[in-house]
Amino acid sequence: MISLDAMQQLLAPLFPGAMGVRVTELAPERVVAEMLVRPDLCTAGGILHGGAYMAFADTLGAVGTVLNLPQGKRTTTTDSSTKFIAAARAGTVVSGESVALHRGRTTMVWQTSIRNAEGRLCAVVTQTQLVLDGAG
Amino acid sequence: MISLDAMQQLLAPLFPGAMGVRVTELAPERVVAEMLVRPDLCTAGGILHGGAYMAFADTLGAVGTVLNLPQGKRTTTTDSSTKFIAAARAGTVVSGESVALHRGRTTMVWQTSIRNAEGRLCAVVTQTQLVLDGAG
Amino acid sequence: MISLDAMQQLLAPLFPGAMGVRVTELAPERVVAEMLVRPDLCTAGGILHGGAYMAFADTLGAVGTVLNLPQGKRTTTTDSSTKFIAAARAGTVVSGESVALHRGRTTMVWQTSIRNAEGRLCAVVTQTQLVLDGAG
Amino acid sequence: MISLDAMQQLLAPLFPGAMGVRVTELAPERVVAEMLVRPDLCTAGGILHGGAYMAFADTLGAVGTVLNLPQGKRTTTTDSSTKFIAAARAGTVVSGESVALHRGRTTMVWQTSIRNAEGRLCAVVTQTQLVLDGAG
Repeated sequence: MISLDAMQQLLAPLFPGAMGVRVTELAPERVVAEMLVRPDLCTAGGILHGGAYMAFADTLGAVGTVLNLPQGKRTTTTDSSTKFIAAARAGTVVSGESVALHRGRTTMVWQTSIRNAEGRLCAVVTQTQLVLDGAG
Repeated sequence: MISLDAMQQLLAPLFPGAMGVRVTELAPERVVAEMLVRPDLCTAGGILHGGAYMAFADTLGAVGTVLNLPQGKRTTTTDSSTKFIAAARAGTVVSGESVALHRGRTTMVWQTSIRNAEGRLCAVVTQTQLVLDGAG
Repeated sequence: MISLDAMQQLLAPLFPGAMGVRVTELAPERVVAEMLVRPDLCTAGGILHGGAYMAFADTLGAVGTVLNLPQGKRTTTTDSSTKFIAAARAGTVVSGESVALHRGRTTMVWQTSIRNAEGRLCAVVTQTQLVLDGAG
Repeated sequence: MISLDAMQQLLAPLFPGAMGVRVTELAPERVVAEMLVRPDLCTAGGILHGGAYMAFADTLGAVGTVLNLPQGKRTTTTDSSTKFIAAARAGTVVSGESVALHRGRTTMVWQTSIRNAEGRLCAVVTQTQLVLDGAG
């Protein structure tokens, strides 16, 4: 399996890299990461922008799917749904844990729970990944 | 109502500003914007990251809600769901149109359609905004 | 294409038949139906149960997909998301219009708007249908 | 707290009663129920209709919310999103477990996992319940 370092290098030039996503655990059924709530990731009021939660989670669910792809397959997200529950303040760190609810041949379903520095659940994102033929 | 310039200034220091969202039309039932697909907004393969679509749309739905808030009210997104349909390549511009499906006293529902440079529908995002007491 | 009568006969012994769904228009990009809000489809307070909206819509999106399936293909719903907006009273009739947002080879996306007898939007349901090999 | 018998009597004349939902456990943070996959709850092919999963889950999340409502409050579902993962055959029994992801003053979020007779996860439904003033 790909190492944490190699994954981080893949993400670096992409949107997750620009947002500062740091993957800290990689396993076929679970991906963990954290992200500093920088001011430029916030919305009015100095709290993490809803879109930043969703982009953070989308990254983790896609990474988790890639870890499970058979040779010669690639993946795309077909849908994502998010419930927003609590806020995360600028200057703090949020953590995200994405777990596989389903790992099938045609689709995978990953759910990411994002918590703020106090450990409070801020957002839950559930996404479906389609498994397609062809290199990614 | 707030002018396009004033809205753009509000967004500039926030996540939408960092992503390069440019609001081009503001009306109580419709908000339009565009965004350059910069490489640092992309995922592998040089296409717009799923999270960037969602962050773009979340911004438009929230802006639309703010345009409709009575004095002394603020809003928060409670949920957002996205269907991903087609890709947008780095270096092109995507456009987003958010329309109000519902503007009530307690909740508003906005739906954003994002199209690529060829006019093809790439993503549809539907979100619920809760209307709360207190200044934003 | 299958006729309205033939479609109604297919649905009769199934859940849509049990709920009283009546399909009134069938076209490749649009399906329309209505349903009487019977007391046994309601929740407390004599209004249509949230699940009944979702089942009504799921039926229309699946029917629409079936109309577009190439020979030898079948479909399954992979996800569905609903925003609830207004209520429909027992004894009235709700109408649903499902339109295709995307009709691809791998997935189709259908969105159903359900309105009450006064024409007010009650619920919007967006669903993804996966297109699979094999007879249905 | 309301007893299982009293809850079952409340549901009997409503849509959950018509579908045959049997609540088997009631606690403020968890509701469990089962449902026989009757032929009239199925879609083509003799498997549980997508809408029946969603109606089953919507019932459990609403029941769970009601258990947590302060005096003088009522609730309505504002959104619901479902991922469909596996099928349940006619004649078998599905079980649903709904757990509270959030129980706040303004909103509650419940997630229902539905499993087939072999214990396989068939659908995951996440819903937001708005807490409103006024008796239900």
